[in-house]
Amino acid sequence: MTAFHCALALVAGRFVPGVRIETEDGAITGIDQGTHAQAGDVQLTTVVPGFVNAHSHAFHRLLRGRTHDDGGDFWQWRTRMYAEAGALTPDGYRDLATRVFTEMRDAGYTSVAEFHYVHHRPDGTPYPAHDMEIALADAAASAGIRLLLLDTVYLRGGVGAPLAEEQRRFGDGDVHGWLARWHALRDALAGHPLTELGAAVHSVRAVEPTDLAAVAAGLPAEVPLHVHVSEQPAENEQCLAAHGVTPTQLLAAHGLVTERLSAVHATHLTDLDIQLLGAAGATIVMCPTTEADLGDGIGPAPELLAAGARLAIGSDQNAVIDPWEETARLELDQRLRLQRRGVFSPAQLWRAGSATDGFRVGDAFDAVEVDTGSTRTWGADVHQLPLVARSGDVTATIVAGRMTRPQER
Amino acid sequence: MTAFHCALALVAGRFVPGVRIETEDGAITGIDQGTHAQAGDVQLTTVVPGFVNAHSHAFHRLLRGRTHDDGGDFWQWRTRMYAEAGALTPDGYRDLATRVFTEMRDAGYTSVAEFHYVHHRPDGTPYPAHDMEIALADAAASAGIRLLLLDTVYLRGGVGAPLAEEQRRFGDGDVHGWLARWHALRDALAGHPLTELGAAVHSVRAVEPTDLAAVAAGLPAEVPLHVHVSEQPAENEQCLAAHGVTPTQLLAAHGLVTERLSAVHATHLTDLDIQLLGAAGATIVMCPTTEADLGDGIGPAPELLAAGARLAIGSDQNAVIDPWEETARLELDQRLRLQRRGVFSPAQLWRAGSATDGFRVGDAFDAVEVDTGSTRTWGADVHQLPLVARSGDVTATIVAGRMTRPQER
Repeated sequence: MTAFHCALALVAGRFVPGVRIETEDGAITGIDQGTHAQAGDVQLTTVVPGFVNAHSHAFHRLLRGRTHDDGGDFWQWRTRMYAEAGALTPDGYRDLATRVFTEMRDAGYTSVAEFHYVHHRPDGTPYPAHDMEIALADAAASAGIRLLLLDTVYLRGGVGAPLAEEQRRFGDGDVHGWLARWHALRDALAGHPLTELGAAVHSVRAVEPTDLAAVAAGLPAEVPLHVHVSEQPAENEQCLAAHGVTPTQLLAAHGLVTERLSAVHATHLTDLDIQLLGAAGATIVMCPTTEADLGDGIGPAPELLAAGARLAIGSDQNAVIDPWEETARLELDQRLRLQRRGVFSPAQLWRAGSATDGFRVGDAFDAVEVDTGSTRTWGADVHQLPLVARSGDVTATIVAGRMTRPQER
Repeated sequence: MTAFHCALALVAGRFVPGVRIETEDGAITGIDQGTHAQAGDVQLTTVVPGFVNAHSHAFHRLLRGRTHDDGGDFWQWRTRMYAEAGALTPDGYRDLATRVFTEMRDAGYTSVAEFHYVHHRPDGTPYPAHDMEIALADAAASAGIRLLLLDTVYLRGGVGAPLAEEQRRFGDGDVHGWLARWHALRDALAGHPLTELGAAVHSVRAVEPTDLAAVAAGLPAEVPLHVHVSEQPAENEQCLAAHGVTPTQLLAAHGLVTERLSAVHATHLTDLDIQLLGAAGATIVMCPTTEADLGDGIGPAPELLAAGARLAIGSDQNAVIDPWEETARLELDQRLRLQRRGVFSPAQLWRAGSATDGFRVGDAFDAVEVDTGSTRTWGADVHQLPLVARSGDVTATIVAGRMTRPQER
């Protein structure tokens, strides 16, 4: 048993002084409030649940600060992204992902959902032993961050088009090939306790509609399923032209819009799309810094929340790795869109960031210690830190009960 | 003579290796490129001109993280802002501004334009010896930052309305009272070498149109003049109702739209407004983090630049003090507005941040040393740092040749 004493901690939506959290094997077994530290306790200051990074492409970190020259349009970004994807090797990706996941952990993310499609060799042939996926799991173990590895089905280059040359390493031939590899991968990951295997459909562009139901049916019911949805208007236009419905409606028609769905971006939605996602209780992963960088636009986050959906945040292309900047932008970009303040409450921003209202018995003890007296944060109401703090204010991250201090600032 | 050797420095729009900058009394007297350090040189890594904070209300720092609860609308923000303005004393403001200006300096700002209207006692009577203004100049001296003190004329509470109770300390009775105090203040500031006196009209709401020309005529021609312009639609509606023209057009009609004008915000403009500001070569101070926080909207910055205006950045309410976050948002918010990447070039962002294309002989040596190998910045093209770096990457700030390292992170 390890006990942590927090001078202030978030419990059930409130900041409570003197919170003593007992843990066993990294899970919370007891929470005492309004109490003093005991001998042997790990003493912490202000502590909140760790941020959940619900959408990442780790290798995009290589593009940071390298796509804004010479006009810097979307196609330039895309060309360089494919070049980086083409050059990845298992050893290289292990090193890179370790560095990227460490940056995430130091910024306050305690878990990352890695949307992973670079799973084959550049020529499309498989690695002998899930080399790329094991590399990512090793990287998460080295960085000390929880990994939800979203192995991604990516079968075609667009509506009715085969994979392009630079996309061949994303493919599995057909949906059955992907499912077979997915199940074998689950066994192969058994030795990585911080890694959980989830699944992703790259987008409705990348998978035939007739294969969507096979994806859902071929996965165990509890497995999370993520999909890129309606990030840019062109995706909607192509889907409407080919299928007569929006991407959300196409996913719904094949049974994918359920509570286990995480719809990533959801920037350009119709009212019906919003109702479908809300009624299902799906999670919407907003990636504010990426959606700004790529000029996607500002999605209808408050409308989705009102309709019944849950909100989450993702660092996506990792041009920025800072959960506080994501939560701040989640609110502030809505203010720009709606031209009014106070769109989300601070409690809603904490929940979008960490998928919880505070520490609970039974949950893993994944936590962030934050400096409330830094040059940035002094004077702020601690509830309002998602609008105020930044990654540099994180003084410790705890994943499954194991504490690390940021390596550099 | 003090010489600084920079491993890499921005000169004439390019990053040049091995730049040796000679200074005399804080001004640049020589620049050698592609050279080695000499004995006695101050050795620096990557060095860029200091950021110019072109719009600040220092005391608003007290509102950071304190106005987002209970709905957090604009009126709640405004009520709390007036409460803080009412409570300021010269000694208290000296301490607060020292802390705020130090935060600015550590983040990479080497000068701040303080838009200052809390210049009287709460009951509207004057202080005996410019106590508030001297307090701000003292704070700038303590923090080691250059101060452009914009003493502000603020005579009425709205179109046709006297100052409200909580605004009385902003007033000077009439424009002649303000001008007399302004000239006396200039003499009183003679002993503060880092402080220069400028002027501001709070807004067209706060000054009668017939007084605008008197302001311009009563100031020496070289004195900078700043005005809040069209931050929110309501200001435009009131001005149109009262005067039949927009705020920009009203300022132009009274001779204030010239090269010495800095128009702050300029969020909601007509095409004619843009042409007037551009043709005059006025400076437009965009305050992206504040304009997001207050839900103002995203102003037509690229259109203004194309019309001939210059762009600058300001931290305004100081909810965020980070010039890098302002330059990043300057670009990224335009991408959200226009739904395309690459609106401004990196060179345009550096220029908006620092009002220069690089170090020049004759300029003051105001500079920032930035860590290009931090967890945030590694791998980025140094030209693209305005989209990548953050305040925590600043390793030294130099103002008038005097170097300081950040106090805290």
